[in-house]
Amino acid sequence: MDNVQQAAANAKRDSFYLAALGAEVRNRALGRIISALDAARDDIVSANTQDLDAARADGLPEPIVKRLKFDGGKIDDVTAGIRELIALPDPVGKRLAKRQLDEGLILEQVTCPIGVVGVIFESRPDALVQIASLCLKSGNCAVLKGGSEARLTNRILYEKIHAAGTESGLPDGFLTLIESREETAALLGCHESIDLIIPRGSNAFVRYIMDNSEIPVMGHADGVCHVYVDKGADIAMAVPVIRDSKVQYAAACNAVETVLVHADVAEALLPPLGRELKEREVVIRGTERVAEIIAGVDAATSDDWTAEYLDFIVSVKVVDDMAEAIDHINTYGSHHTDCIVTEDDEAAETFMQLVDSAGVYRNCSTRFADGFRYGLGAEVGISTGKLHARGPVGLDGLTTYKYRLYGDGQIVEDYAEGRRAFHFIDIK
Amino acid sequence: MDNVQQAAANAKRDSFYLAALGAEVRNRALGRIISALDAARDDIVSANTQDLDAARADGLPEPIVKRLKFDGGKIDDVTAGIRELIALPDPVGKRLAKRQLDEGLILEQVTCPIGVVGVIFESRPDALVQIASLCLKSGNCAVLKGGSEARLTNRILYEKIHAAGTESGLPDGFLTLIESREETAALLGCHESIDLIIPRGSNAFVRYIMDNSEIPVMGHADGVCHVYVDKGADIAMAVPVIRDSKVQYAAACNAVETVLVHADVAEALLPPLGRELKEREVVIRGTERVAEIIAGVDAATSDDWTAEYLDFIVSVKVVDDMAEAIDHINTYGSHHTDCIVTEDDEAAETFMQLVDSAGVYRNCSTRFADGFRYGLGAEVGISTGKLHARGPVGLDGLTTYKYRLYGDGQIVEDYAEGRRAFHFIDIK
Repeated sequence: MDNVQQAAANAKRDSFYLAALGAEVRNRALGRIISALDAARDDIVSANTQDLDAARADGLPEPIVKRLKFDGGKIDDVTAGIRELIALPDPVGKRLAKRQLDEGLILEQVTCPIGVVGVIFESRPDALVQIASLCLKSGNCAVLKGGSEARLTNRILYEKIHAAGTESGLPDGFLTLIESREETAALLGCHESIDLIIPRGSNAFVRYIMDNSEIPVMGHADGVCHVYVDKGADIAMAVPVIRDSKVQYAAACNAVETVLVHADVAEALLPPLGRELKEREVVIRGTERVAEIIAGVDAATSDDWTAEYLDFIVSVKVVDDMAEAIDHINTYGSHHTDCIVTEDDEAAETFMQLVDSAGVYRNCSTRFADGFRYGLGAEVGISTGKLHARGPVGLDGLTTYKYRLYGDGQIVEDYAEGRRAFHFIDIK
Repeated sequence: MDNVQQAAANAKRDSFYLAALGAEVRNRALGRIISALDAARDDIVSANTQDLDAARADGLPEPIVKRLKFDGGKIDDVTAGIRELIALPDPVGKRLAKRQLDEGLILEQVTCPIGVVGVIFESRPDALVQIASLCLKSGNCAVLKGGSEARLTNRILYEKIHAAGTESGLPDGFLTLIESREETAALLGCHESIDLIIPRGSNAFVRYIMDNSEIPVMGHADGVCHVYVDKGADIAMAVPVIRDSKVQYAAACNAVETVLVHADVAEALLPPLGRELKEREVVIRGTERVAEIIAGVDAATSDDWTAEYLDFIVSVKVVDDMAEAIDHINTYGSHHTDCIVTEDDEAAETFMQLVDSAGVYRNCSTRFADGFRYGLGAEVGISTGKLHARGPVGLDGLTTYKYRLYGDGQIVEDYAEGRRAFHFIDIK
């Protein structure tokens, strides 16, 4: 326990110095990390092979073993990711505002790193490299905790990245790896040192973190996304949008879980939609009104409206009007991403105004909700919270800002007693 | 309890509709609130007189009774504040980004209200009017809980504002008043309905709220601000800056609590500073090195470094170099506002980089840390957290954003399988 607290305190102390390093130092370190990972290919793959063997020997389910695999191709992927990151503009030191408050009294609002970010992730070792490099690019110290099944892979990745970073002049505490479950519990208590926790994993996992730490958490707990097919929809467009939203990658948080259909178009939409989904082996759980129109529908229960299936299952409900659809989404949804299919501009505008979600879409797949697809570059995660960052979060989500005020002896008394007055001139 | 949950749920439901109302409706309602408060002057003052009588009868301390007072002058102040608020630009519906992801696929990032804001404040009834109008201007529903000693004043203010708002077309749930301590506890549990809690009051009060709710809290717990007098300081400038930072309004969170003095200038600074502070009846708690230079110094203990005196007391410490000062501030400070007095540009830059506070100042009073003085217009509060808003928070701190994505049938499969490609063109 003491070790984690000490490591977190060291990271905090070093975070001030990391924050003050220029972009060229951080980018140079990222370049050196690429070389180090390239040079250590064989050792990394061999460590990963041991993790894979142990996982199979422990009888871990095949999907987990698959996510654990970190081979030459994965090394190419993560180093390509770091190369893209180096090319992105520096998120630190951006001037958000500059204002002359009075003669000789200049206020600047400038972005800076948040400080120390704790990241707790499950089995995929790619996450370690990705998160370490995102935090470094944005000038944050990172404390990482990976899944125990990837222990050897994580350790060698950490050692290579840490050595390359410190050799490039980064402070020792820029990156810390913790390995045990007990250390994770200790980390959650380090609210003096850790400024932000980013959990990457299942719902239950994110909720556990949120419920067990005073440290602010950025992440999403659920992805219950909707497609609402309005009475003004182009049916030929609605079918592929729904299919893509469901099957293009059903295990993603931005996959659709519930389709809401306006009663006026239910008879036109449901038969072709049912055929399309059946062909893709998607199970439909529908209300009675759905079952009256198409066959092969399982009965939906109220649990279906809040279910994140992450699977080839979709719930379908017929609604009497758009208001009912909006109410359903705001009540049962997870405020992630929700789409209306319609040719009616006014209906689209109303839907996008009233639906309280990070992403409100018209006539396109919910699967677009992703930092890369939004053009943000690297993605920290997707936030369904409303404070700080919302929706897909890029590097900017790892920064905050400071106000810098430059004077030449100004005191407030002079303004309070009317000897001087503010004049507020914004400076470009 | 049920009542509060129901009221919060109603506010949530109405928040979607309030968010969709245009600025002209919100501003018109604010205008009508001004008229309503003006027209109810006598009734408001009479309710306040009853609260004041009860407070005196209950033997409440005079400073609390004083803050409770809400007379004609205060009514003028709050209505003038609303008039200024009406004149401010709309914080809702600002387009933060617009990007063409591909032909016909347009992403917009647009500001919107957070939703439902719970505000819990202590004795001053002005806070009710101020917070209600800030929330309305930014399109948020507000659930307010005031101090019980201001019960009658708060109730009539609430009734007048609520009636004026609903008569202007706002939904009923735009403003809710809760009155009992039990209802406050219930409110803290309404994380399904309340998006943000803003506590306004003492440290202990803010900490209590933070420790007893899952709802995100925006506020500051402490204001332990520093002035560091560097070896390169202009001593004649340092003395009035410190005096103003301490005595201009000692009870404010942005008042200085600790002065750090570089050893090289201690002999030059401390005698004139000591005289100036003595003249203003400020008690000095100093280290031994301070007491060696000037007389009449109480001995500082380690508790002094974290104390928020909010009074005519200041702690003073001699440091050997700037690194020691920065380390002291980052260790014991509250990350609120800290100032360096120096003529040395390089030292100033290093200090402002390494000090991890919402405000980092050079050569001016810490008392400038305030939304009005920063030119933000109305102030929601000052945040010492690093996520969402930091430092003095204006109306923007009461907004979040949505991503709107407009397509004409685009699906992700086409991009994943190489039939189409993103091209990311930012649109001004």
